[in-house]
Amino acid sequence: MRNILIIGAGRSCTRLIKYLLDKSEEENIFITIGDISEETAKKYTQGHANAKGMQLDIFEIDKRRAAIQAADLIISMLPARFHIEVAKDCINYNKNLVTASYISDEMQALDEEAKAKGLVFMNEIGVDPGIDHMSAMQVIDRIRDQGGKMIMFESFTGGLVAPESDNNLWHYKFTWNPRNVVLAGQGGAAEFIQEGSYKYIPYHRLFRRTEFLDIDGYGRFEGYANRNSLKYRKIYGLDDIGTLFRGTMRRVGFSKAWNMFVQLGMTDDSYVIPDSAKMSYRDFINLFLAYSPTDSVELKMRYALKIEQDDLMWYKLLELDIFNAEKKIGIENATPAQALQKILMDKWTLRQDEKDMIVMYHKFGYVLQDEKYQIDSNMVLIGEDQTYTAMAATVGLPVAIAALKILNKEITTPGVQLPISKEVYEPILNELKGYGIHFKEKEVPYLGYNPNGGVIG
Amino acid sequence: MRNILIIGAGRSCTRLIKYLLDKSEEENIFITIGDISEETAKKYTQGHANAKGMQLDIFEIDKRRAAIQAADLIISMLPARFHIEVAKDCINYNKNLVTASYISDEMQALDEEAKAKGLVFMNEIGVDPGIDHMSAMQVIDRIRDQGGKMIMFESFTGGLVAPESDNNLWHYKFTWNPRNVVLAGQGGAAEFIQEGSYKYIPYHRLFRRTEFLDIDGYGRFEGYANRNSLKYRKIYGLDDIGTLFRGTMRRVGFSKAWNMFVQLGMTDDSYVIPDSAKMSYRDFINLFLAYSPTDSVELKMRYALKIEQDDLMWYKLLELDIFNAEKKIGIENATPAQALQKILMDKWTLRQDEKDMIVMYHKFGYVLQDEKYQIDSNMVLIGEDQTYTAMAATVGLPVAIAALKILNKEITTPGVQLPISKEVYEPILNELKGYGIHFKEKEVPYLGYNPNGGVIG
Repeated sequence: MRNILIIGAGRSCTRLIKYLLDKSEEENIFITIGDISEETAKKYTQGHANAKGMQLDIFEIDKRRAAIQAADLIISMLPARFHIEVAKDCINYNKNLVTASYISDEMQALDEEAKAKGLVFMNEIGVDPGIDHMSAMQVIDRIRDQGGKMIMFESFTGGLVAPESDNNLWHYKFTWNPRNVVLAGQGGAAEFIQEGSYKYIPYHRLFRRTEFLDIDGYGRFEGYANRNSLKYRKIYGLDDIGTLFRGTMRRVGFSKAWNMFVQLGMTDDSYVIPDSAKMSYRDFINLFLAYSPTDSVELKMRYALKIEQDDLMWYKLLELDIFNAEKKIGIENATPAQALQKILMDKWTLRQDEKDMIVMYHKFGYVLQDEKYQIDSNMVLIGEDQTYTAMAATVGLPVAIAALKILNKEITTPGVQLPISKEVYEPILNELKGYGIHFKEKEVPYLGYNPNGGVIG
Repeated sequence: MRNILIIGAGRSCTRLIKYLLDKSEEENIFITIGDISEETAKKYTQGHANAKGMQLDIFEIDKRRAAIQAADLIISMLPARFHIEVAKDCINYNKNLVTASYISDEMQALDEEAKAKGLVFMNEIGVDPGIDHMSAMQVIDRIRDQGGKMIMFESFTGGLVAPESDNNLWHYKFTWNPRNVVLAGQGGAAEFIQEGSYKYIPYHRLFRRTEFLDIDGYGRFEGYANRNSLKYRKIYGLDDIGTLFRGTMRRVGFSKAWNMFVQLGMTDDSYVIPDSAKMSYRDFINLFLAYSPTDSVELKMRYALKIEQDDLMWYKLLELDIFNAEKKIGIENATPAQALQKILMDKWTLRQDEKDMIVMYHKFGYVLQDEKYQIDSNMVLIGEDQTYTAMAATVGLPVAIAALKILNKEITTPGVQLPISKEVYEPILNELKGYGIHFKEKEVPYLGYNPNGGVIG
């Protein structure tokens, strides 16, 4: 029996664990799930004979090290900041490691040691980062193999509600950590390069500089810029590319409506509101509106945001019940972002019978024999239910497949790495197709920046 | 002879030094000016017999300590972060200290030692902070002495160009550190309290939530909120006041025009622009506008900011020559804020024959025998020339007067303090009148929040 240790069992692990359990007989593997909660760990084993759950607090060093020593490969699904402790143990005990998180500077610093010991430390192999890297590099490498030169790369990912469960005016529900959704885009200007020009968008304009994206059978989406697109030039070997843009996908109209909260300062996470627990939703909104002894919060809101009488934006606000004077924030020392999250969770939490959806969209522009070409490629996956969500599938399956391939010595290149080499992405993307995760490509005329649509503002 | 040591000689010291030199004979004082530049230090002595200039680097510890030991009182006009080293020496050598800067936590921590040794460490005794504290507390104490209860306090200060030198569309020139002007309002939401309601304004809306202020003979000004008004509740003993607001004064229209830069992200100081030195003003502006292969930077700017054809805002931009394709930023690794500052300094630097102006405006609302009253109080000072500016007078004179009164044991209360006690503000405000720094008060109907004007948004 080969032993795989999964550290940290969350909602994103369901599909990962099911994959490994389904293969456990034929692959002769045993899965240990370690979580801070023993109950959670045991639940995720689903009573399978080839699995056990155990309580594992990564700050109990001896216990952590014993568990790592007993395994042949470690999958860390902990929050990203905790991987490093696990990674150091993996160096000490000669274990391979898989994570779905961005490579931190600390993780990168282990590269030489991992290489010297012949260990594979595979990171960024979830959905975003993960499937985005693999599906992009597959096309980029193919274009290069044909003698083409990349001149444009745009890539968008979104975690959304499935069309069949889409029943609110925002066309949005939380399918992942709500806090990250509320804080999205904060911390500095979004930077990217377009036709050779650097471009910067400050946070307070981010949601008004969107681009439309159409997916056959699913309709129109929009994308707003992620913070740092430029680092992908180096990662993907696109150092002299003219256009490089990465973004987040939403249904059309979400960004313009979300911008209302941004404009008022309701997504700020840097200060605490006095007496927030007892504050009503209405009073919370009023913190961001000018004082008036007579005017209603509603009219002040319309005025502050210039919302006309028949604007659908207004009904998006009403749908959230943000003017309710009875409902309380209920969180002590809440920041505006935390209070807003509470209000949104009332309405945007998926019900048990509702499904999520992952969408990804790439645009590849290239020159081949002096002609410009463009390939658009997209992927849509709809979750099965609230256990086997599209998020859990797209995050967990690449992790699980990579783990097994490392164990089986099909992926062998050592060091701290991400899935951008053919050795890694070809077999994984191929296997993902069997789980409904596949990209549809189409050639489109090369437009570059499209003057009749595209980015405005 | 009593010895006063002034550490750090900048433009704000001219009036301070002149005051002390003019009094040096009758008061029997000798002034030593220590500056990192010996030339600067000597220049500021004006060749006066009762003064000498010396090179003084505060990080040359022995030299600094020798200079402090040789003096009877120290005036530190260094940048605020450097006061603490001087202050610790003042504790060790039993010297009184005067600064015009906000009391830092480190400075506050010396309070007990200063008290134990009977030393006066007087801080925040320039203009803002300084004259604002004194002029406010004088009225607040008077209202309290009459049995009144404060219910509203608003206070605004501005460093502006004098009317006779006001010849641009912005009605603004730099009269103080330009960098602070470009960064003003950044770092978090402005918070204040209005009629008992906490209010928060995010940076990107700060310049669109202004209040108008009229000063007889000088016309209309506007004020935008400073970051933290709430701390003045404690300092002024106004813990249960319903309205407390502090702001910065500009001429009408400045804030709305400045907001154009804020909206585009041109005041961001958190990242560096590639190849900034060789970048033209026009290319700098274009960083913040959407890419287009055909449209002009001008039209993209009008579109992004919704500037109509006949809007004066447009001419404010043209006046700055920001669309110039020849003029270069000329600063390596410039942040957007640094690049913008460079552009503005071309146009907003005072010429040798131009004058500055300091304006201050207080509103005091109070209840006396169940009636509500309001007193408005304002001060305007116009500089004499580019040496004896209004800024230098309003910063330097209170410092100088306080220093002499401490030396003469007219101000004796020991400890780390700011000028909010009658012992300090009465004689200083009285003496300042002789230099044209005086407040005009008028009773006005108590309006509280004025529904026909005032804060909008």
